[in-house]
Amino acid sequence: MTSIDLNADLGEGFGRWRLTDDERLLSVVTSANVACGFHAGDAATMRRVCELAAERGVRVGAQVSYRDLAGFGRRAMDVPPAELAAEVAYQIGALEVFARAAGTRVSYVKPHGALYNRVVHDEEQAGAVVDGVRLADAALPVLGLPGSRLLEYADKAGLPAVTEAFADRAYTEEGTLVPRGRDGAVVTDPEAVVERSVGLARDGVVSSHSGARVEVRARSLCLHGDTPGAVELARLVRTRLQESGVRVEAFA
Amino acid sequence: MTSIDLNADLGEGFGRWRLTDDERLLSVVTSANVACGFHAGDAATMRRVCELAAERGVRVGAQVSYRDLAGFGRRAMDVPPAELAAEVAYQIGALEVFARAAGTRVSYVKPHGALYNRVVHDEEQAGAVVDGVRLADAALPVLGLPGSRLLEYADKAGLPAVTEAFADRAYTEEGTLVPRGRDGAVVTDPEAVVERSVGLARDGVVSSHSGARVEVRARSLCLHGDTPGAVELARLVRTRLQESGVRVEAFA
Amino acid sequence: MTSIDLNADLGEGFGRWRLTDDERLLSVVTSANVACGFHAGDAATMRRVCELAAERGVRVGAQVSYRDLAGFGRRAMDVPPAELAAEVAYQIGALEVFARAAGTRVSYVKPHGALYNRVVHDEEQAGAVVDGVRLADAALPVLGLPGSRLLEYADKAGLPAVTEAFADRAYTEEGTLVPRGRDGAVVTDPEAVVERSVGLARDGVVSSHSGARVEVRARSLCLHGDTPGAVELARLVRTRLQESGVRVEAFA
Amino acid sequence: MTSIDLNADLGEGFGRWRLTDDERLLSVVTSANVACGFHAGDAATMRRVCELAAERGVRVGAQVSYRDLAGFGRRAMDVPPAELAAEVAYQIGALEVFARAAGTRVSYVKPHGALYNRVVHDEEQAGAVVDGVRLADAALPVLGLPGSRLLEYADKAGLPAVTEAFADRAYTEEGTLVPRGRDGAVVTDPEAVVERSVGLARDGVVSSHSGARVEVRARSLCLHGDTPGAVELARLVRTRLQESGVRVEAFA
Repeated sequence: MTSIDLNADLGEGFGRWRLTDDERLLSVVTSANVACGFHAGDAATMRRVCELAAERGVRVGAQVSYRDLAGFGRRAMDVPPAELAAEVAYQIGALEVFARAAGTRVSYVKPHGALYNRVVHDEEQAGAVVDGVRLADAALPVLGLPGSRLLEYADKAGLPAVTEAFADRAYTEEGTLVPRGRDGAVVTDPEAVVERSVGLARDGVVSSHSGARVEVRARSLCLHGDTPGAVELARLVRTRLQESGVRVEAFA
Repeated sequence: MTSIDLNADLGEGFGRWRLTDDERLLSVVTSANVACGFHAGDAATMRRVCELAAERGVRVGAQVSYRDLAGFGRRAMDVPPAELAAEVAYQIGALEVFARAAGTRVSYVKPHGALYNRVVHDEEQAGAVVDGVRLADAALPVLGLPGSRLLEYADKAGLPAVTEAFADRAYTEEGTLVPRGRDGAVVTDPEAVVERSVGLARDGVVSSHSGARVEVRARSLCLHGDTPGAVELARLVRTRLQESGVRVEAFA
Repeated sequence: MTSIDLNADLGEGFGRWRLTDDERLLSVVTSANVACGFHAGDAATMRRVCELAAERGVRVGAQVSYRDLAGFGRRAMDVPPAELAAEVAYQIGALEVFARAAGTRVSYVKPHGALYNRVVHDEEQAGAVVDGVRLADAALPVLGLPGSRLLEYADKAGLPAVTEAFADRAYTEEGTLVPRGRDGAVVTDPEAVVERSVGLARDGVVSSHSGARVEVRARSLCLHGDTPGAVELARLVRTRLQESGVRVEAFA
Repeated sequence: MTSIDLNADLGEGFGRWRLTDDERLLSVVTSANVACGFHAGDAATMRRVCELAAERGVRVGAQVSYRDLAGFGRRAMDVPPAELAAEVAYQIGALEVFARAAGTRVSYVKPHGALYNRVVHDEEQAGAVVDGVRLADAALPVLGLPGSRLLEYADKAGLPAVTEAFADRAYTEEGTLVPRGRDGAVVTDPEAVVERSVGLARDGVVSSHSGARVEVRARSLCLHGDTPGAVELARLVRTRLQESGVRVEAFA
């Protein structure tokens, strides 16, 4: 029986501001990418999300970012690699306190926003993120795009490299994401998202932008939780996956 | 044979800015209070200081602070206790990554600046700091003023409470510090500082502001490293302590 | 004919986060307290709010705060007066750029959150805020509580002191606010808020917590915009004031 | 008689940290690039530097930067143009308060660090900086590299474009700077710096890296103040320029 992990970004508020419906998302996902204070995520929120995740048996991951509250981590930055590695480790360590206090551990790392996109191709920064993860824990899985420099370097460094796919993003025939901003880059029809989720999880395939059948092998599906109706859609994806014979569970 | 711990604040730069002569101070002290990013201390500096401390056998402590880069943590803040506890734990966790990567551990916690002064009397914040420390590690020693709420609450919570004294600060007859800003609050004559250090470490006494002999029992002496000549003075204190038959070593 | 100003906090998002429904609030209020970046308010939001306010003929005021994004300016801080004065001036200047670019000016200053509460009684900080306002503009009105040190010092310094009242807050018999946190401190019944608004604006009176008739003379009413239904309530207050023969207009 | 402006970065501390010897540099330069809080420059320092500059008749310029305290503005950032323009205007406005309070005005704008380098070639960001300057003041001069997109766009937008040169940086035969990090990119011999200053200011020429005579027309020379001996060297440059018949004065 096929199984798939469902991950989503959580705890993406800061102080007075809230963005993600953490409590409800935690009833859907199996892996929670918790913001660690650099693009979002104050300490009290990090603590609460870890406690809720632990109660529900959801795995906690460190969603590490550039230091950029004003830009929500969406501004690519030329951070020197030694500084980037240290900043990544810092964030993982800060989250680890709350994960442990809640009776669990930081179980994986996923870069956020501009850093996520950058380490698809940027060798220096991909290497720095891997260095940062290894500073924190030499056996910590890294979540990213199939074919990314990040996962390549993680694998070389002995860190489990976990692939993920996006049911609500258009794919090219080569299996890469159609860049945001292009027409049709985001799939908004809920039924289409559900169908694509099943295709990705059960069969490892998705229809490309041009209609071709594309293989995309991923151990995790990324769901989004910061738009209206997002939690309902996530729930629907989970239900339909299970009805389609896919086991929804955290990656091994 | 009497023994004394020597502690000092380290890593108090941020990015381009430097304040403390970390390398040279590490050849004098036995315990390094490492800034954790809230009042000072970028991630790369934290990493480097932990590495240097581990190499030299100097113990690493988390110097936790209010979130206040602009005020260097010297602005007392009414942080709600749940937020303060989480912020304290966050800082300890961030430092722990670098301590472990360097082959050591965060071995104690010492509040910085305005937070240090506040938790002498403020029960709510003292309790919050203790809660934050316990989130991170239920057996982590806390360094503070004898008689402070902080040490009282740490002790009640089962955390080792470690007392410290200041050879360059004037004491009242009751054994409390003369507040900064008052005439003579700071002892600037190097020879006087050295003598007071020996008195405090070997005999547990110091001359009060008014000339009285005051008992001050402390397991650690705090040295300052951010003024001209500070490192030389610290070195002199260490040498004279040893010549006076005091063993300079980290507290147990 | 009596007239009243209606003010509300606007632009209280930061980057990706939004809090206030700026566009709709601007169709109700006559004075917009625009966040200036210290507790909320990124530069692009400040610009947009100034443009919208100028289009609608709403006056722009600088909502100055402690430097505290993580605490949303709700953590009282012991900022040394010279630093506080400079920080206040900095925020006013930053907002002034966008006000002028939109064809208007910063027309008043109102402290936010913990700073607002502190300068009711704290002489040093009240003086520092006044100094900061005067650095920016020696004739800029200051908005605050009747009887506050802030307004007293503003008046002495030659700055117009503008009083405000809160229709959704309980008052003591002495005409001061019942502290938040006490039972009944906040009036939540919409009809009661509307009636109190009319009483405050038209008659200068409000029922105290204990039921007594209390005189509260205020040239502005503060409306809140960050809770569900807040804009509708604000609109209702405005309509009912006008129906009661009160002219709703910015203070002179 | 030829004249040259001498500019330097000032006020580049933050809170407890100091970097530039503002007071002494102000006795040498004719234009002070004052940090505005995004890479350095707290409000109290900005105020003090403006006061000192006004006393000495030194012109105040806004040294605008990416929002990056941790990286000192040296991390290039992909800031969306509308946000960058607003952030530039915000900084200029904040400084303007202190300039006016000191009896002067912000008289020009110079980007700092990574932003300075980026707007040499990046059309989008160069345009955004110019938009930001125009938001603040439609006639404000912009200081930058000859041939940069920044100065080209400033000129097109009707802002005076002021060229600057660096006596302590190596030039290519094409008159561009040899990138930092390359061998010989920085000229460290004081006498060479002085001679190059005179050549640049009096004759508009400098020896290239390869020994060729290169024309570099600049109305301002940038001096550095954050290294040991920098102020003495700056003073020597100023004296030698004057002895060589060059008038040292702010650009028109």
